[in-house]
Amino acid sequence: MLPVRIVTRHSENPLLTPENVRPSQPDFEVHGVFNAGAARVGKKTVLVLRISERPKSRAKDIIRIPALTFVKNRPKLSFTDLSLKDPRYDFSEFSVVWTTKPPRVIRYLTSLSHLRLAWSEDGVRFRIESHPWLFPHTREEAWGCEDARVTQIGKTYRVNYTAVSDLGIATALASTRTFQEPKRHGVIIAPANRDVTIFPEKISGKYAAHHRPMPAYIGGTNIWYASSPDFLHWGDHRFVAGPRPGLWDGEKIGGGAPPIRTPKGWLSIYHGVDRKNRYSLGALLTDLKQPWKILARSRRPLLAPTAPYERRGFVSNVCFTCGAVERNGDLWIYYGAADRVIALANAPIRDIVQSLTKS
Amino acid sequence: MLPVRIVTRHSENPLLTPENVRPSQPDFEVHGVFNAGAARVGKKTVLVLRISERPKSRAKDIIRIPALTFVKNRPKLSFTDLSLKDPRYDFSEFSVVWTTKPPRVIRYLTSLSHLRLAWSEDGVRFRIESHPWLFPHTREEAWGCEDARVTQIGKTYRVNYTAVSDLGIATALASTRTFQEPKRHGVIIAPANRDVTIFPEKISGKYAAHHRPMPAYIGGTNIWYASSPDFLHWGDHRFVAGPRPGLWDGEKIGGGAPPIRTPKGWLSIYHGVDRKNRYSLGALLTDLKQPWKILARSRRPLLAPTAPYERRGFVSNVCFTCGAVERNGDLWIYYGAADRVIALANAPIRDIVQSLTKS
Repeated sequence: MLPVRIVTRHSENPLLTPENVRPSQPDFEVHGVFNAGAARVGKKTVLVLRISERPKSRAKDIIRIPALTFVKNRPKLSFTDLSLKDPRYDFSEFSVVWTTKPPRVIRYLTSLSHLRLAWSEDGVRFRIESHPWLFPHTREEAWGCEDARVTQIGKTYRVNYTAVSDLGIATALASTRTFQEPKRHGVIIAPANRDVTIFPEKISGKYAAHHRPMPAYIGGTNIWYASSPDFLHWGDHRFVAGPRPGLWDGEKIGGGAPPIRTPKGWLSIYHGVDRKNRYSLGALLTDLKQPWKILARSRRPLLAPTAPYERRGFVSNVCFTCGAVERNGDLWIYYGAADRVIALANAPIRDIVQSLTKS
Repeated sequence: MLPVRIVTRHSENPLLTPENVRPSQPDFEVHGVFNAGAARVGKKTVLVLRISERPKSRAKDIIRIPALTFVKNRPKLSFTDLSLKDPRYDFSEFSVVWTTKPPRVIRYLTSLSHLRLAWSEDGVRFRIESHPWLFPHTREEAWGCEDARVTQIGKTYRVNYTAVSDLGIATALASTRTFQEPKRHGVIIAPANRDVTIFPEKISGKYAAHHRPMPAYIGGTNIWYASSPDFLHWGDHRFVAGPRPGLWDGEKIGGGAPPIRTPKGWLSIYHGVDRKNRYSLGALLTDLKQPWKILARSRRPLLAPTAPYERRGFVSNVCFTCGAVERNGDLWIYYGAADRVIALANAPIRDIVQSLTKS
């Protein structure tokens, strides 16, 4: 299914690549700078990048897994050496190590992700900071901090991110006013849940979010709504949207950029996965007062992986956004491509809304 | 592993059986009355029973699945007839229909559960009401309302229960002062999550609960802590306890009865599942001010399925509690046995606490 021709890729794509990033440890190598939250800070644009890195390989048949371990509740960066010939594990995917015997579960991540800032005056050329902004520290982040989303409410930026560990894939929160130092608020939504996007204003007296549980046994990867009095405690969970079998989002869906207010409803850029495991971007429009009600939705993707940097990387055929910025009626969508680089695509917000099919 | 000899089964066990229960619909048959929340209301004991029922079978090779469907958001009790010879499904378990092809998921429940009250003066002989107290009504309850837990705080009883549908296994809340009519509060914890037990008082200014996510891909069935300002919105999720491989709770664990305050800590009766899929009961003691910290835990089960009504039923070898009542220093543990009947076991609270092994 061909994408709608509304979105334009930036001519300088990809904007950021692993080669631009200094590793957090001297013996590490960065292999991904992707899936970035985005916000305006004064006249600047800030990206909260996901940097994935791992120790440089020492032997050909060994993979060295980085993760936190805890001694008396103190975190320590530790390593596990796995033989690529170990029959207990399936190393066929770059990012994750599956068990070969049932129950088939992810036993290790091959890299450790942290969050790092990048700044830009024009929204295109970014200066990446040389040190991490938020590095894994807690028990629930032992396998990494991933996929930040930034929502500005008042003078404070709320940054939610995926906290991964052997306990599951959860959503944690940090906040900041100046981006100098993040303040951690712990896990706000229990595992398995990621792709949380917080709305930029209160709705009926409560903060609001879309989130994406990954339930075992029963239920698929659907988008849900939740409300909160304080960003920390979430409830009133309601189903919003599920995959549409046969379409570009037929297998899985999940939130992308935090919702943007338009006169017609809340506009959310989200990702969908099709039968060929292609990650594309489309949009949802939800009711301004009841944002669990869908008003319209992309019948065709707005952006599907066709550019070389979207098709080949560490995970093939991926366009995945965590943040978009509104500038003069245009939406600047920053997106991770093939789990390796950051790219930019732009579209007039009005055109996106008009392209959606009413529910 | 033999259980600790502290808990005494009641001589009149099982206290309640499906034969005592009037079906909610004329053409239904009740096959389970089990997993009941329990509370004291004045001098009486109330049980919030899980009643599971389904249409009487009409043809030998057909199973008629009950569930809610929705027309313009209005719920309607509907039925799906499945042939037991349908190769798409695995009917080997009594309660659930699995898909045969991967991904192996639960496609149907064979019965619909609702919540019903039973009252007693002596805590042993119960009168079961003839009509449901809380019958499935919402989208998230389309496959049933199960496993209520009751916590009294002030004059209000909070009743959390499992809301099951094709969207997943979630936790919903109702409240009541008199048990006349429940007030529904919707889904308080998103799927997949059940076995939620709410503490009977605020801790550090917030309500508190233990809950049990069932994450996909990464993480096991661990017990977590969460806090809430209002019972409706939950956050500050922290890992509490996981299964202990090789022991009676080596495969899965989950909350049972809501925690009870003792001088030494919060006492929680919980269930554990071993390698033979036997569900036994044991106890956790958590810190009075930091109830995510375990102080002590049952090395051996307090109650393991050995009585005939615990060993044979609709799911074999199950002791599963949702509620216990404190009476003169004793804990009266009401428990579901083999997913078919309600039984009672008693133990001095002090003896339970003393039986635990320090962490």
